[in-house]
Amino acid sequence: MKIYGDERSGNCLKVRWTCDFLGLGYEWVEVLALTGATDQDWFRALNPAGQVPCVQWPDGRVLAQSNAIIWHLAETSSLIPTDPFARAKMLEWLFWEQYSHEPYLAVRRARIHLMGLDPASLDPALLSRGLAALKVMDTTLNAQDWFSGADFGLADIALLPYTRFAPQGGYDLAAFPAVTRWIGACERHLRLQALVAATL
Amino acid sequence: MKIYGDERSGNCLKVRWTCDFLGLGYEWVEVLALTGATDQDWFRALNPAGQVPCVQWPDGRVLAQSNAIIWHLAETSSLIPTDPFARAKMLEWLFWEQYSHEPYLAVRRARIHLMGLDPASLDPALLSRGLAALKVMDTTLNAQDWFSGADFGLADIALLPYTRFAPQGGYDLAAFPAVTRWIGACERHLRLQALVAATL
Repeated sequence: MKIYGDERSGNCLKVRWTCDFLGLGYEWVEVLALTGATDQDWFRALNPAGQVPCVQWPDGRVLAQSNAIIWHLAETSSLIPTDPFARAKMLEWLFWEQYSHEPYLAVRRARIHLMGLDPASLDPALLSRGLAALKVMDTTLNAQDWFSGADFGLADIALLPYTRFAPQGGYDLAAFPAVTRWIGACERHLRLQALVAATL
Repeated sequence: MKIYGDERSGNCLKVRWTCDFLGLGYEWVEVLALTGATDQDWFRALNPAGQVPCVQWPDGRVLAQSNAIIWHLAETSSLIPTDPFARAKMLEWLFWEQYSHEPYLAVRRARIHLMGLDPASLDPALLSRGLAALKVMDTTLNAQDWFSGADFGLADIALLPYTRFAPQGGYDLAAFPAVTRWIGACERHLRLQALVAATL
C-alpha cells in the first residue's frame, strides 16, 4: 500500500500513525500539498478531490479522506469498539474533528507555522473557534480518559495531530490541562515522542 | 427516539430522511439553531458541542454529528454496503461532504436564504469552492450512478440536502447536468418531492 501524504499535515500523520500502531506495511510517497502538487493532473487522476492523504493498493484501488482511511485500516482492530453505539460515538468524534476542530486548529497552524503569515493578519474566528474546540475536548476529558470509549482508539489518533501541533498555531495548551495530560497518554500509546519531535 | 433538529438545516434533514426511508419512528423536536437555541444550557447539557442535529434515545443516550447519526441508524440496512472497501468509499464521501461541500454550499445558502445577506457581501471563496465541490460531484456522476457504490445509499442521502438547496445559495445547477439528474433520482428513491417543497 502506498500512502500519498505531506508529512507536515496532521491529516496525513493520522494514517501513518494508524499503520505504525497496527504494524501495517506501507510506502510513503511525499506530496507537498502547499506547493500545489495535489492540483497536478497525475494527482487529480488518483484523487479527483485533490487532497492528501490518499492511499492506493497494488490492485489500483484508491481511498481518500483521512478519517475514512484510518477507519478502513482499523475496522477489525482493537482501535474501534465492537459495540455499535460505542462505534457510533467514535464516529461522532471523527466527524466533529473534521468540522469543528481541524478547520480552525490546522488552518491557523498552517498559516502561521508553514506559511509564515503574521497572526494579526488572520481571521480572529480561527483563534476563537479553535479555543472553543479545545474547551470541548478539555470538558470531555474531565469526564472520560479517551475519545474512543473505554480505551485508547481511533478517535484519539484522529484528534491527536492537530491538537499536539496547536501551539504552532498560537494556541496556549496551558489553559487545557486535561488535553495536555491526554496528549502525553496518547504519545505513550503510540510511542510517538521521537516521531512527533521529528515532524515539528 | 427524539431528533433535535432545525428543519431548515440540511444536516438535520439527513436524519429525518434516513428515518423516513427506513421506517424508523421518531419525535421531532424543533430547535432554531440560528436564533441561538443551541447555545442554551439545556441544549449544551444534551450536546456539549452545541450543534444540531442530535438524537436521544429513551434510556438517555445521545448521539450527535449528522453523518455519525445516519451511519448508526442505517448500519444494518441496505443503505450501507456490506463489502468493507465499498463501505469505506461511502465513508470517504461522508467526510468529503462535511469538509469540502457543506462548509461552502450550506454556509452560502444560510447567509443568503436564511439570514438575508447580500451575496456581494460574502467571501467569494464560498462561491468558488462550492462550485468546485459541485464539479467533483458532476465528474463522479458521469462515471457512476450513485455515491454509495452500485446502489442508492447513505452517501446519497448525506449529499442530497445541501446540493438540492444549492440554488438558494446562488449556485446555478444548470452547469452540472449529472448532478441535476442525480437529484431527481434521489428524490424518487426518497419520495421526497412533497417534503422537499415543504421545507424550501
